[in-house]
Amino acid sequence: MGKIYVIGIGPGDPEMMTGEAGEALRSCEIIAGYKTYTDLIKRYYPDKEYYENGMRGEIERCEKCVEYAISGKRVALICSGDAGIYGMASPLLEVADKMGFDDVEIIPGITAALSGAAELGAPLSHDFCVISLSDLLTPWDLIEKRLRYTAACDLCIVLYNPSSHNRPGHLKKACEILMTVLSPDTACGYVRNIGREGSEKKLCTLSELLSETVDMATTVFIGNSQTEIKRGRMITPRGYKI
Amino acid sequence: MGKIYVIGIGPGDPEMMTGEAGEALRSCEIIAGYKTYTDLIKRYYPDKEYYENGMRGEIERCEKCVEYAISGKRVALICSGDAGIYGMASPLLEVADKMGFDDVEIIPGITAALSGAAELGAPLSHDFCVISLSDLLTPWDLIEKRLRYTAACDLCIVLYNPSSHNRPGHLKKACEILMTVLSPDTACGYVRNIGREGSEKKLCTLSELLSETVDMATTVFIGNSQTEIKRGRMITPRGYKI
Repeated sequence: MGKIYVIGIGPGDPEMMTGEAGEALRSCEIIAGYKTYTDLIKRYYPDKEYYENGMRGEIERCEKCVEYAISGKRVALICSGDAGIYGMASPLLEVADKMGFDDVEIIPGITAALSGAAELGAPLSHDFCVISLSDLLTPWDLIEKRLRYTAACDLCIVLYNPSSHNRPGHLKKACEILMTVLSPDTACGYVRNIGREGSEKKLCTLSELLSETVDMATTVFIGNSQTEIKRGRMITPRGYKI
Repeated sequence: MGKIYVIGIGPGDPEMMTGEAGEALRSCEIIAGYKTYTDLIKRYYPDKEYYENGMRGEIERCEKCVEYAISGKRVALICSGDAGIYGMASPLLEVADKMGFDDVEIIPGITAALSGAAELGAPLSHDFCVISLSDLLTPWDLIEKRLRYTAACDLCIVLYNPSSHNRPGHLKKACEILMTVLSPDTACGYVRNIGREGSEKKLCTLSELLSETVDMATTVFIGNSQTEIKRGRMITPRGYKI
């Protein structure tokens, strides 16, 4: 029997991958993943066999990984960012459970909440939440409720998947909901293409964020009531007297 | 002028550090940190100068780093896990701002929410929040409110600093609050000493968690209403039909 590693490769730059992620990739014969992500790493692991497919091919990808492993292969299933946070660890474990396969190891990676925060300063230095604005797999009503409740208890908020071709208005709608609770001057920021070519970032207020156009590769940060912008950095105080 | 890197070293095992974190550590002359964390890495970087102090020495540590950098040194300020999540990035940026120093780079690392989740399976595959139960710098009322509100919108919840000598009952109190909203059968888990010697983990229900004794080095995971335990793994579904 083989083995499956579900590996978070971080934002894309191999320098932002952990040592154990690199080690696991080197040890595998087959690397499976969403094509955009396999393209990011192929040049560093040119001698591997690749299994790639596209969006909505997630379950088939997991089934293939388990089939390869049952046939004795060592398989790396890669995810951008972390293996778990909106990653493939969950569907892979569910598929492996169904197919009766056990030898799975999850290897964490730097998710966009961490890499994006580091780019902006220190926006997540107090309690925070991570919410995806994609309603492909989650009812929009539940997303709205989570925005309202987390704003009401003054959490810092990270938004994943803030926009796509099919739902260009989601960030605007989210900002409108947040502004029913939060000050329009709440410190915000976003980062696009973290750790990849063409990376860009911006700091703004919540009311300015409402009119910004962002894409799927953007991660958005909304501060809590204490967050400030100082010297071009978004800083959420931990509470020390400074 | 020198430079300051605020570096998330991950859980402690150098294999769980990113390449850029290792590179930044090697490039620095001085490594500053809380003594428990400098002890974790000293053997890998034996030729460096160290500045170490203890709990409640955080602001002094930041001031020292800025003084070293102003005097022309390259300084690494290390944090366990990530540099930002309850880390030193925020106080360092505030102190640097006050002292008029700009050249700071934040390097993210694997925080316990990610490394602990990987140990347990895939508990954070849907929207989640991270809440610290330490009331050293946060009023307990606000912590309670955040527990109540995040449970009410069915977020997965990660608890940092669930206990300490001074507040041994915090996890029990948190579970009691959560159980006013969540089912006592909610899937939970915790991991202690992630990526270090003596690491241990346990899966249980929320009502069982209430009676568990955990320490400061433990990270606790509370599932959402869909989270299940299968083959000894905690799995929060992303929403795919499997």
